Amino acid sequence: MQPTGDFQSQLSQCATGIATLLEELLSRKTLEGETTRPERLLAAMRHGVLNGGKRLRPFLLVETARMLGASGPGPMRAAAALECVHCYSLIHDDLPAMDDDDLRRGKPTVHKAFDEATAILAGDALQTLAFDILADEATHHDPAIRSALVLSLARSSGLGGMAGGQMLDIEGEATNRSVEEILLMQSMKTGALIRHACEAGAIISGADQPTRTRLVKFGETIGKAFQLADDILDETASTQAMGKQTAKDRDQGKATLVSLIGLDESRKKASALLQEATSLLEPFGARAALLVDAARFTVERSH
Amino acid sequence: MQPTGDFQSQLSQCATGIATLLEELLSRKTLEGETTRPERLLAAMRHGVLNGGKRLRPFLLVETARMLGASGPGPMRAAAALECVHCYSLIHDDLPAMDDDDLRRGKPTVHKAFDEATAILAGDALQTLAFDILADEATHHDPAIRSALVLSLARSSGLGGMAGGQMLDIEGEATNRSVEEILLMQSMKTGALIRHACEAGAIISGADQPTRTRLVKFGETIGKAFQLADDILDETASTQAMGKQTAKDRDQGKATLVSLIGLDESRKKASALLQEATSLLEPFGARAALLVDAARFTVERSH
Repeated sequence: MQPTGDFQSQLSQCATGIATLLEELLSRKTLEGETTRPERLLAAMRHGVLNGGKRLRPFLLVETARMLGASGPGPMRAAAALECVHCYSLIHDDLPAMDDDDLRRGKPTVHKAFDEATAILAGDALQTLAFDILADEATHHDPAIRSALVLSLARSSGLGGMAGGQMLDIEGEATNRSVEEILLMQSMKTGALIRHACEAGAIISGADQPTRTRLVKFGETIGKAFQLADDILDETASTQAMGKQTAKDRDQGKATLVSLIGLDESRKKASALLQEATSLLEPFGARAALLVDAARFTVERSH
Repeated sequence: MQPTGDFQSQLSQCATGIATLLEELLSRKTLEGETTRPERLLAAMRHGVLNGGKRLRPFLLVETARMLGASGPGPMRAAAALECVHCYSLIHDDLPAMDDDDLRRGKPTVHKAFDEATAILAGDALQTLAFDILADEATHHDPAIRSALVLSLARSSGLGGMAGGQMLDIEGEATNRSVEEILLMQSMKTGALIRHACEAGAIISGADQPTRTRLVKFGETIGKAFQLADDILDETASTQAMGKQTAKDRDQGKATLVSLIGLDESRKKASALLQEATSLLEPFGARAALLVDAARFTVERSH
């Protein structure tokens, strides 16, 4: 079952909106408390975030918030903050000392288009910008909500989340990883930020705790499905369709879930996760239609 | 005039308190929303922050807050957050792609003690931790104050502050820098975080806007004095006393304020800034004694 045309158009509309907002946030215009914004740093930050990505994480945040009745520019701003963190991690992961990648979505990575020092700084400043966006009144009039957004993003992306997951990925003994170790690493490296997308959508809508907990669970579930789909694609898709080197883990002799449990079992597991994610959305009825489509898309996408 | 013994003992007591708090914040204990904390990442983060620094920035924050009547654990937590950002910037600045330093306060830099990838991640995760600390209820019961702290730290340390200043320092044509260019670069690279220390002390005390503005001005003034003193020391002190390579800018043929306006003029200027900073504190009378000492210390320190 393919996602509906409505989903595709909403996803692409959201991606355009996020790119426009990021462009505006990364203009020369300084904010109160800033001195000047060096053009080279801005250019590198823009290169790192305006990369034609699908903006799936922002979409999940914005759509969760919409489903729960949020309005105004807040959800898009929170989604832009999340995307800043996602893109900072890509810039740093691509560095020679890390994954040493020259291409990202078919374009030179930031350290290739600029240089290593600029790429490090661009990643650093994108992370900072994320928290700047969230703490700004323009994101929500209620400071309790702004603080909660900051805390959720920090917990998801720090030493016990995304950054910790990247550490586990680097230090893990490549060939001897167990299924459990891979699941833990992936839940932190990729899963935590997807979970945050759904949690932040609930926070900015002022949702009650049970709803927030349900959406955190939904986010965790599609996070697992997303990573599994990524591993499957890594094994089966071409470099051209992915816009980056594929089968890299396999070529490096790194164990992946697919290499440990096989392609068929992986597909079955992804399907079961999609089922679970969908059933978590049942209480929201028809309002959840686009989120259900998004869940399907994470599993069934071809790139 | 040397700072009083009381100042020295308060500064060292603050440094011990900050180190203890950072140690606690960087324990294995996970917080809500975290999965697990990889030991190697924690160790690298601890190496980067538990480095025997003077903790002048944290002292400025804590002492400003104390002067304005704040109590509880909040000021120390906000000071620890500030120190996380300061130390993340040191870790990244020391990387081979940036300043390529092997020593920091007489100890191997993080990428020397660990490796480059781990140093990049440790810096990243220290920045995240800073915002985590500030957004946590334990820092202040009022979310408006927590949000204001996050915003002040983000503005001071991002593309229009500290990170932007480092970019200007890297890209600036080393030999042809003007006095104005150096002052701009320094006000961002070093000054913004010192200003934040004083502003955050005012924020966490719930100070009114005129008081906050006055302390921001005080922070900016001692920030300039601090950097001038650093340039003078760089020209005159030995590597042993500084615990890092000195005269590096001069050896690289980089223009510094001292090389442009001379040692005597620099000392006069530092003295005038100290005078200005002290007079900004006059309305606070005797309660400002330790801050006055701190201002003196920034100018008259020998390392």
